[in-house]
Amino acid sequence: MALRAAVRNKSALSALLSQLSPCSSHGRVCVTQMRNNSTSPKIKVDFDQSAGVAVMRLQSPPVNSLSLDFLTELCINLEKLEMDKSCRGLIITSSQPKVFSAGLDIMEMYGKSPESCGEFWRAVQEMWLKLYSSNMITIAAINGSSPAGGCLMSLTCDYRIMADNPRYSIGLNETQLGIVAPFWFKDTMVNTVGHRTTELALELGLLYNSSEALKIGLVDKLVPEDQVLTTATQTMTKWLAIPDHARQITKSMMRKPTIDKLTSNREADIQNFVSFITKDSIQKSLRVYLEMLKKRKG
Amino acid sequence: MALRAAVRNKSALSALLSQLSPCSSHGRVCVTQMRNNSTSPKIKVDFDQSAGVAVMRLQSPPVNSLSLDFLTELCINLEKLEMDKSCRGLIITSSQPKVFSAGLDIMEMYGKSPESCGEFWRAVQEMWLKLYSSNMITIAAINGSSPAGGCLMSLTCDYRIMADNPRYSIGLNETQLGIVAPFWFKDTMVNTVGHRTTELALELGLLYNSSEALKIGLVDKLVPEDQVLTTATQTMTKWLAIPDHARQITKSMMRKPTIDKLTSNREADIQNFVSFITKDSIQKSLRVYLEMLKKRKG
Amino acid sequence: MALRAAVRNKSALSALLSQLSPCSSHGRVCVTQMRNNSTSPKIKVDFDQSAGVAVMRLQSPPVNSLSLDFLTELCINLEKLEMDKSCRGLIITSSQPKVFSAGLDIMEMYGKSPESCGEFWRAVQEMWLKLYSSNMITIAAINGSSPAGGCLMSLTCDYRIMADNPRYSIGLNETQLGIVAPFWFKDTMVNTVGHRTTELALELGLLYNSSEALKIGLVDKLVPEDQVLTTATQTMTKWLAIPDHARQITKSMMRKPTIDKLTSNREADIQNFVSFITKDSIQKSLRVYLEMLKKRKG
Repeated sequence: MALRAAVRNKSALSALLSQLSPCSSHGRVCVTQMRNNSTSPKIKVDFDQSAGVAVMRLQSPPVNSLSLDFLTELCINLEKLEMDKSCRGLIITSSQPKVFSAGLDIMEMYGKSPESCGEFWRAVQEMWLKLYSSNMITIAAINGSSPAGGCLMSLTCDYRIMADNPRYSIGLNETQLGIVAPFWFKDTMVNTVGHRTTELALELGLLYNSSEALKIGLVDKLVPEDQVLTTATQTMTKWLAIPDHARQITKSMMRKPTIDKLTSNREADIQNFVSFITKDSIQKSLRVYLEMLKKRKG
Repeated sequence: MALRAAVRNKSALSALLSQLSPCSSHGRVCVTQMRNNSTSPKIKVDFDQSAGVAVMRLQSPPVNSLSLDFLTELCINLEKLEMDKSCRGLIITSSQPKVFSAGLDIMEMYGKSPESCGEFWRAVQEMWLKLYSSNMITIAAINGSSPAGGCLMSLTCDYRIMADNPRYSIGLNETQLGIVAPFWFKDTMVNTVGHRTTELALELGLLYNSSEALKIGLVDKLVPEDQVLTTATQTMTKWLAIPDHARQITKSMMRKPTIDKLTSNREADIQNFVSFITKDSIQKSLRVYLEMLKKRKG
Repeated sequence: MALRAAVRNKSALSALLSQLSPCSSHGRVCVTQMRNNSTSPKIKVDFDQSAGVAVMRLQSPPVNSLSLDFLTELCINLEKLEMDKSCRGLIITSSQPKVFSAGLDIMEMYGKSPESCGEFWRAVQEMWLKLYSSNMITIAAINGSSPAGGCLMSLTCDYRIMADNPRYSIGLNETQLGIVAPFWFKDTMVNTVGHRTTELALELGLLYNSSEALKIGLVDKLVPEDQVLTTATQTMTKWLAIPDHARQITKSMMRKPTIDKLTSNREADIQNFVSFITKDSIQKSLRVYLEMLKKRKG
């Protein structure tokens, strides 16, 4: 619970982080894994201090669902890297086969109390705020499918490299499940692919395969699957050649208006989500979807 | 005059509609045609209740000009369909050969009193507001040329299918006639094709043939002329698979800021139009244009 | 100094201009060159009164750097043409080989007092305001490289024709030098190529060769180098066929919100620039860059 509460409270988070053993500087590569009371870490961070680049591997089986625990771990890792001035770049990728992230964990929204739903939503907001406003160079190495929240996470990065595999899809497909991408998901997509493509994609809950995603600008580059991470590392080298302060001011100038819209409406957005998701009709939609998923597995 | 006044007054319109014989449910297809004191109906609506889809045919010879009478009929039909919960989708097409709609009827702006011009403009606003904010899935089956107001009507829809015919053109070409597309025409186009393409198109009053229109994103799909309506129907089936409430909330989220700009400036926009269109220089431009049209016919 | 001060003061500028011998009407082509106390004119204006089109040639060796003197001369020329109702179109091109304009003159920002930096920045703002809001049809005939401020100048025009030469580049590459394109540079680029392309271009300080620039919409047309000016003239003829008042109102509608953002924040923008550029770290970046330029020449 301490980890969860920390997401809601920056001071508490800082206090918590100060108790964690910081990444020591005596080795070239330093591996950090958040400890969790009961489970193995869902995120693995390898920080190459000589390069100033961290690689964050999502490793929460089976599909890197964004649960509250996952988001909490993600945010603590992000905060830690952000505070480390020697960390200039972050590559996010998946350790799970065929999937980057399946998006928000529906179990956090189904049959839960309004309080739990609100706590979960705040963690989703926090992830977006931290990633979209990061001072680090952020590159998504999308080595598998990336629907809904997984797509959102990719969209917050400075650059997106995707595995050239027609079976992998990416998109904000919330509408297909009977739920709605909130305004800041929408804003992030509009900033990436423009208004009309976003309107069409969100009304229909479209998922794009990798080629389609490249064509509409949802990702920036396709490479063979086994080259996704090496290409991300090469791309990072180009970005590291740009003076940090100028790049950071520029990034903030591009994104601040979008970020401010959420920070100034955060509580209302949580209320809005909770009252929507706890509706009987929406809960029923989620149940239908969950049963469909079970059948698929069976 | 009752129909005209109704456009200005929603309560009056509702009262009026309640007196009209509603579309009865005993047949599969129900045809509605607005009765008009002196003329035959300018719009024909076929509502397939089993599918939940209405097809609206524009049938005002020769070129479906958006006159006050036409707009009034259109708005009453739209209001009626919108209030019918069983109607989920609307396809708009033309019964006239070679033209979808030629746009605003210049005779409503030439040699008319400021009051008449204002009444006309309010009806144009009303059409745009009703179409752009419709809860229904709206698909434009553009089976002919669609300049100016005809293009605007298409742009309000969720999807645009155009006949693949290089002789058919579409665009907001107002500037060519010496008049100006108002900000909400502009906003609708920016939302569809982006700022720069809109700037170029509106400064030059560009008309695009069907291929060019597809290329810049002014329409979404080209098909042979005889397949426009069947393709629209097939496309509608895909859209109907999306849960209505999620699609409607999403559509509103995408369009509300643009709609709010007009609703909060409606009277000023009318004043602006009236003072512009009644200028001697603009009336002269319109006269030159009308004489050019007459010569072409002769 | 009078010329410089004039930029800051519109009344003073008008007074100054009234003393200059106006372009007489007895010839077909009238050449204006601003007189400068000590140097030859940096800008040459040929005004073809029968066509209503002026051609402005940038002729400040070696690379048309936007110095305070250059900007002052440019603004006075623009003001003069703008006030001449017979001048409907303006083509901007370069007399220098291989370069349209190298952008802001770094010598105006390096080792200068805050007052000088502020005066310089006000002149840059003035150039942008005059060009972006011009009532004239403005066409950039980009016959050479056009980085940074040169790109900005091109982006303010209604249309951009570039020499089809892979060695010529264009882009807002400020970040590469450790400085930052201000919000109105950014806004102008977003209005032209959209949010995402701008984000990527500005974060990395990208320069595009002519083909790439065409592909992303940074320029509108490529032609062989010896046809840049003739194509600009032919393009101008098409634009001149559009009624001026309708085109001007349309242009203003597209650009006014962007212009208003600067005019209502002009002093703060100057303060922001001065406090940034006079920082030790930034001055050091500029010194490194200048030394690199010197070595290249050597």
